[in-house]
Amino acid sequence: MVKITLIGSGNLGTQLGLSLVKNGYEIIQVYSKSKENATLLAEKLNSKATDDLNQLIDTDLAIISVNDDSISNVSKLVNFPQVHTSGTISMNDLNQNYPVGVFYPLQTFSKNTDVLFDQIPICIEASTNNLLEKIEGIAKELSNKVYFMNESKRAKLHLSAVVACNFSNLMYQLADEICDENEIPFEILHSLIEETSHKIKKTSPTKAQTGPAKRSDIKTIENHLDQLKNNAELFEIYNLLTKSIINRK
Amino acid sequence: MVKITLIGSGNLGTQLGLSLVKNGYEIIQVYSKSKENATLLAEKLNSKATDDLNQLIDTDLAIISVNDDSISNVSKLVNFPQVHTSGTISMNDLNQNYPVGVFYPLQTFSKNTDVLFDQIPICIEASTNNLLEKIEGIAKELSNKVYFMNESKRAKLHLSAVVACNFSNLMYQLADEICDENEIPFEILHSLIEETSHKIKKTSPTKAQTGPAKRSDIKTIENHLDQLKNNAELFEIYNLLTKSIINRK
Repeated sequence: MVKITLIGSGNLGTQLGLSLVKNGYEIIQVYSKSKENATLLAEKLNSKATDDLNQLIDTDLAIISVNDDSISNVSKLVNFPQVHTSGTISMNDLNQNYPVGVFYPLQTFSKNTDVLFDQIPICIEASTNNLLEKIEGIAKELSNKVYFMNESKRAKLHLSAVVACNFSNLMYQLADEICDENEIPFEILHSLIEETSHKIKKTSPTKAQTGPAKRSDIKTIENHLDQLKNNAELFEIYNLLTKSIINRK
Repeated sequence: MVKITLIGSGNLGTQLGLSLVKNGYEIIQVYSKSKENATLLAEKLNSKATDDLNQLIDTDLAIISVNDDSISNVSKLVNFPQVHTSGTISMNDLNQNYPVGVFYPLQTFSKNTDVLFDQIPICIEASTNNLLEKIEGIAKELSNKVYFMNESKRAKLHLSAVVACNFSNLMYQLADEICDENEIPFEILHSLIEETSHKIKKTSPTKAQTGPAKRSDIKTIENHLDQLKNNAELFEIYNLLTKSIINRK
């Protein structure tokens, strides 16, 4: 079984480490720039901790799960095959003296909420067939959804994930603000939000669309814009997104 | 038990009728401007059909579930207590010779997808205590989540529902377009979209936010805008929503 070094103890590193160990992989060493975090995670993974990149023990594979901006610098000190876990960074930014690749799980992670990796898509890419096979094996142990994806596609996927998820969450946030100002419990929207996100598994988002913009219900749209006339930011967002829905009909 | 006339055989009328009958209510008559639709739904509800508003049979309550624009005109021919099911129309637009009210289930309905009403919030309002009690009783039979809400609050709720749901769905649509152009299966985003909509049940959307805008990851934001430079509409949306997330930090 592949022996692994885990570099980074953030949300993704933590969840990935736990899932790898659960699937029988041995994490030989955990690195974090904070010794405390490294030790904390290493204990959970029955592994060794370090906060010194010059003390890394060679293994079959380093999984580099640090901030995008640090990946390149960290990688220079990793002298064995390695992958990073970022949606946006090129594998060419990794140490080119060794086989390199990408192991990108497409999910939003929190340190303290355990995730089930089996439903999380993992996008992989590698500079050698040998490394690609190795990380494909690991990805398939963890998840039922493994995709081979090169850098340019991964960049488009990351962009679409930001649109579908971060921007949706902003919509929840704006709705929460409207509710809050008007003493309406935000919980009242939970089931509608859930149904909206479920619908698109059964039909395309285009077919799933409803509401005043979709119906060209100008009276309601004008009423909403009137309600927003003292909130320039939300007025602009409402206007732009409503036009965009109308353009798509 | 309250005897009901159902006016309208659209998505909401259909689901509401089915749920009322399941809960033991008697639907005396179903009206639709299309005789065929009236008959089709009446058969399912063990009821009578009509396409003539002058032939309505008096019952305890008419539930008017027609297009917003038609509510007022239809109501003039309903000569007994009545509610409409709209999020945006005032109950003052109903026939003021009788007790009137609002019975607004906050959900997105499809004719052929049966919904479980018990988790759907129902917002009610009425011009008399007697009617309010009557529709409160019905609402509580159908749902665990019944809210008393006046017109101005209901308008704010409807606005926030458009933002949280129609606009989120637009984000799914835009992401789908990006995926499609780049031959990426949209399904790859399903679990991320689902997790995003789940998270806000456990924490506020503000705390749940992730991504480049939240992290002020300018490099990634610039990379995304560069990818969108030939798509003026999406460029503008990305720019505006990213600024909005940054402003909220």
